[in-house]
Amino acid sequence: MEACEIWRDLERIRAEAPLVHNITNYVVMNTTANALLAVGASPVMAHAVEEVEEMVSLARALVLNVGTLSAPWIGAMMKAAREARKRGIPIVLDPVGCGATRFRTDTVQSLMREAPPTIVRGNASEIMALAGAGGSTKGVDSAAASEEALAAAQALSRSCGCVVSVSGATDVIVAEDSIVRVHYGHPMMARVTGLGCTATALTGAFAAVNPSPFHAAAHAMAVMGIAGEMAARRSPGPGSFQVNFLDALYLMQAGDIENQ
Amino acid sequence: MEACEIWRDLERIRAEAPLVHNITNYVVMNTTANALLAVGASPVMAHAVEEVEEMVSLARALVLNVGTLSAPWIGAMMKAAREARKRGIPIVLDPVGCGATRFRTDTVQSLMREAPPTIVRGNASEIMALAGAGGSTKGVDSAAASEEALAAAQALSRSCGCVVSVSGATDVIVAEDSIVRVHYGHPMMARVTGLGCTATALTGAFAAVNPSPFHAAAHAMAVMGIAGEMAARRSPGPGSFQVNFLDALYLMQAGDIENQ
Amino acid sequence: MEACEIWRDLERIRAEAPLVHNITNYVVMNTTANALLAVGASPVMAHAVEEVEEMVSLARALVLNVGTLSAPWIGAMMKAAREARKRGIPIVLDPVGCGATRFRTDTVQSLMREAPPTIVRGNASEIMALAGAGGSTKGVDSAAASEEALAAAQALSRSCGCVVSVSGATDVIVAEDSIVRVHYGHPMMARVTGLGCTATALTGAFAAVNPSPFHAAAHAMAVMGIAGEMAARRSPGPGSFQVNFLDALYLMQAGDIENQ
Repeated sequence: MEACEIWRDLERIRAEAPLVHNITNYVVMNTTANALLAVGASPVMAHAVEEVEEMVSLARALVLNVGTLSAPWIGAMMKAAREARKRGIPIVLDPVGCGATRFRTDTVQSLMREAPPTIVRGNASEIMALAGAGGSTKGVDSAAASEEALAAAQALSRSCGCVVSVSGATDVIVAEDSIVRVHYGHPMMARVTGLGCTATALTGAFAAVNPSPFHAAAHAMAVMGIAGEMAARRSPGPGSFQVNFLDALYLMQAGDIENQ
Repeated sequence: MEACEIWRDLERIRAEAPLVHNITNYVVMNTTANALLAVGASPVMAHAVEEVEEMVSLARALVLNVGTLSAPWIGAMMKAAREARKRGIPIVLDPVGCGATRFRTDTVQSLMREAPPTIVRGNASEIMALAGAGGSTKGVDSAAASEEALAAAQALSRSCGCVVSVSGATDVIVAEDSIVRVHYGHPMMARVTGLGCTATALTGAFAAVNPSPFHAAAHAMAVMGIAGEMAARRSPGPGSFQVNFLDALYLMQAGDIENQ
Repeated sequence: MEACEIWRDLERIRAEAPLVHNITNYVVMNTTANALLAVGASPVMAHAVEEVEEMVSLARALVLNVGTLSAPWIGAMMKAAREARKRGIPIVLDPVGCGATRFRTDTVQSLMREAPPTIVRGNASEIMALAGAGGSTKGVDSAAASEEALAAAQALSRSCGCVVSVSGATDVIVAEDSIVRVHYGHPMMARVTGLGCTATALTGAFAAVNPSPFHAAAHAMAVMGIAGEMAARRSPGPGSFQVNFLDALYLMQAGDIENQ
């Protein structure tokens, strides 16, 4: 992963402000919209079955996130994903809490079957549950390290034909025959709600400008991690961290990426 | 627009803490509630059809916002708006994303027909779509400058008998035979999600204390813009901007308005 | 109330990171999740009837909050509460806006009848409405001081067999034959949306580690108030207050509690 390629994607996002359509959870709607704006993209949140096809057709990426799932949202996700596939718009799926309840695991598995995503971005527990590899989840937090989910991620990538991005202290991104690890980030990131969902949303922005979903996923995790390190240096706690994280996404320069 | 009149409204809001009932979108519920509290008003968010009539009858303004619209919410907005009209409570309507999908345009047009609002507050693309003047929307962001929407705003104001407040680099507020332009604000405001929705919510607070919807709309946009300039002076990015914007609403003094 | 006992609970939360299952309102989902993470707990938000029983069975506390109630959520709250009772998992109920509309009062009274909570945490107006003691509510803000709700809180505690925690300038916590008052806090806390809901969420975290609901409720209010005072000392307005409040929850040491 070259610093100059990460930077090139970031410059493209800032120049083109791609529209990213999110059908996501209530907890993170505000924070992921703000992260997308801070990085230079243009977010829209819309979930009504009456409008998701029309909305996604205007967008350059679709982000699906099952964090506060309920039945009416599943149909909207399905419709939007089918339309996105028909139009060649990349889909990023976040299987929040998969493994915690059967409802979530079943829903995500059926989404993956009916309208396969381009990229799945989850934590180790979620990826293992989704691949049927067991593993336990503690609510929406992972009970395993990302490396433990490597075999599951590879199996999922093969069976679904998608990139799998496993976040953790080290992020592991897997495509059919490639692996890349991202070592950026900071423990404070686990003390802010929805930073995993933010990683998913930013992956959507990168997929909008980079035709390689594998590189898009890796670059997004790198920018997340670098912004996290920049923010942690000036944040005594998770409140100031959130503020400084958005500022870091907005202020990040080529040098911040190269000097990592 | 006189500084002393803006200040008088702000003082009234702080003294009377008018209850503002919001039926708004998921993305901005938290941030618009906080902006209303920071400016001195008392927000309530309630959308159940079972309670909106009772809730709005306690309030001094009703704010409707279709940002994350779905079918069950439309009936509640309609019921609340009819009750507000019956009681003479001012209604401020934000047509978020009008023009992006037929569902939104149709819903807002039917809201305007069945229970006309006192004030419509939107960006140029939304106002043009609503007036049937064409124009294109990029999701929820405007693709046009507010001045381009002037004719559409005037037509909408005449046909609906309401004040139309078009936000942008310059805000243009239109009533039947009056126009006022507000030149305050800062480009950073476009990098924070929901500041348009915040403008709508604050317009509700001003309409609660000022019997002239035209002046209320203009004063709200002035306070938005002045707070934005105050915040931008000390904010390196959109994270710190959000924090400083709420502080500025809370701390604003007469001198901050006069010295603009 | 001993400082060392408050601190012991806080240390346990930080060491054990108990999972707290929240079925709460849209306005505060993000901020209460962040407060739970800042204090050391692990939050999950889930409201689908299909999964609430499974989710609550993984949790050590259940938090119910009717702030943006609608019909589909009531069934989920009822199911989750029944399962929590069956498993001996403490339930904390926040009757947001009780008294403002009949829909809220009726819903909360029926929740209390069908699946009595361990702790009710509300403001004076809400507790009085819930106890049928009249009192008036201004939307979701209290129109009475907590001391005025003492008799209502005691009646409610007796009839429901639960602890009642009334927040205000002074917090009053009532069990069958005990009362404790908490004098910490700062007026700025009323200018941030959802800090009452945050108190309820933190009460859930304390109830997860302390087998006495009475002490858990009191310790949670003490930590809220102390964090509020710590934050207010460095916050010119409610924007910076929110940031510093989360930092204070995260950074709080034994000395911060003892020196109050």
